Amino acid sequence: MAAAAPPPPPTPAPEGFNDVPRGSTPMGYPLFSRIRLAHPTDVPHIHKLIHQMAVFEHLTDLFVATESSLSSTLFTSPPFQSFTIFVLEVSETPFVEHLQCNNSAYPPTVKTHNLDLPIDDPERDLFRSNGGDAVVAGFVLFFPNYSTFLGKPGFYIEDLFVRECYRRKGLGKMLLSAVAKQAVKMGYGRVEWVVLDWNVNAIKFYEEMGAKVLQEWRICRLTGDALNAYVNA
Amino acid sequence: MAAAAPPPPPTPAPEGFNDVPRGSTPMGYPLFSRIRLAHPTDVPHIHKLIHQMAVFEHLTDLFVATESSLSSTLFTSPPFQSFTIFVLEVSETPFVEHLQCNNSAYPPTVKTHNLDLPIDDPERDLFRSNGGDAVVAGFVLFFPNYSTFLGKPGFYIEDLFVRECYRRKGLGKMLLSAVAKQAVKMGYGRVEWVVLDWNVNAIKFYEEMGAKVLQEWRICRLTGDALNAYVNA
Repeated sequence: MAAAAPPPPPTPAPEGFNDVPRGSTPMGYPLFSRIRLAHPTDVPHIHKLIHQMAVFEHLTDLFVATESSLSSTLFTSPPFQSFTIFVLEVSETPFVEHLQCNNSAYPPTVKTHNLDLPIDDPERDLFRSNGGDAVVAGFVLFFPNYSTFLGKPGFYIEDLFVRECYRRKGLGKMLLSAVAKQAVKMGYGRVEWVVLDWNVNAIKFYEEMGAKVLQEWRICRLTGDALNAYVNA
Repeated sequence: MAAAAPPPPPTPAPEGFNDVPRGSTPMGYPLFSRIRLAHPTDVPHIHKLIHQMAVFEHLTDLFVATESSLSSTLFTSPPFQSFTIFVLEVSETPFVEHLQCNNSAYPPTVKTHNLDLPIDDPERDLFRSNGGDAVVAGFVLFFPNYSTFLGKPGFYIEDLFVRECYRRKGLGKMLLSAVAKQAVKMGYGRVEWVVLDWNVNAIKFYEEMGAKVLQEWRICRLTGDALNAYVNA
């Protein structure tokens, strides 16, 4: 259900690193990344990413979503007014088709990463984005919440996920930053999410991003038969 | 910020309790309650209730909401699609003006409680509802959230509050039940909220309502200067 993020990116390669591998540029191996609003056509990839997150969190017993249930419940409101998804794509070649995925509500964010080694993505074909060179590497799903103490909305991040082979490259930070920046732009007061208390790498990453981990609060959940019992309440 | 609920109602008066106080009926003192959608004109009462909740939770340092900030950020969407407030009113006389507060999205829920003793409400004049006999006794603020594991929406309860003199009468249960029933009606998968780990009365109450308290999750919050730093992210 919730945010699983990579640990912080590693320290940069030491200066004077001259043993450039074959095929790389003097700067290393470029990886081009783009964050854009999701389309309904992204649902098959999003469904697979959610399943990978459930595996990572040891919570596959709670995973019952289908592509159909996602399609029928997402994309029902304009971006940011309700459930909103940013998709993270990566490519070894620069993104050029911005016009195709442009959206006045959120122009895509692009960034170039210079890696020391190329990434071997064993699921490249499974996650190819719209038949091009780019692959889907992660996503973030968020929606407005409300703080009565602040008297203003915020964003709640339900999921933040980056596929394993793309972790530790600053991509999780890029996704979280995109949500935080959007919150500031909209005058919102908070960005919140939850983390499993055993996920120390994620906690360290979030604290370095400026978040505080609230130790006193516990989540209460009413679901399944216990919820359905209220039909005649 | 979050749900503060009364402990479970006390056990009923023992059978054969015949020492009926003066002014009561043979059934005790009737208290009529009604749950209805909030209007913008309820904001002054809602603001006072939020402040009382902040006092109860020892979190007044986080309370900066004003009537103006609430008015400008609430009531911006149809009920249940975004931030939604149910107001709880109570009266010593039956509610008759249902037509005035009727709303096709949510017809008011009414219930009669038979109390052993009358309630002395020291803030009756402060919380009088629209100049009538009824007073505002509590509220619940909630909005849609989303479970990617279920592939469907739910409701998140940001606040549930009943004024002190009206606690232990089943009114908190009535508010929570109203949200749960609405969730079932809409085919939603979960109702969630948070509780302070030291609020053992509330935890017991919620568990009796069918909720599970999730022990492993912690809330992460990015706010204030740490959030605003993302403006140029």
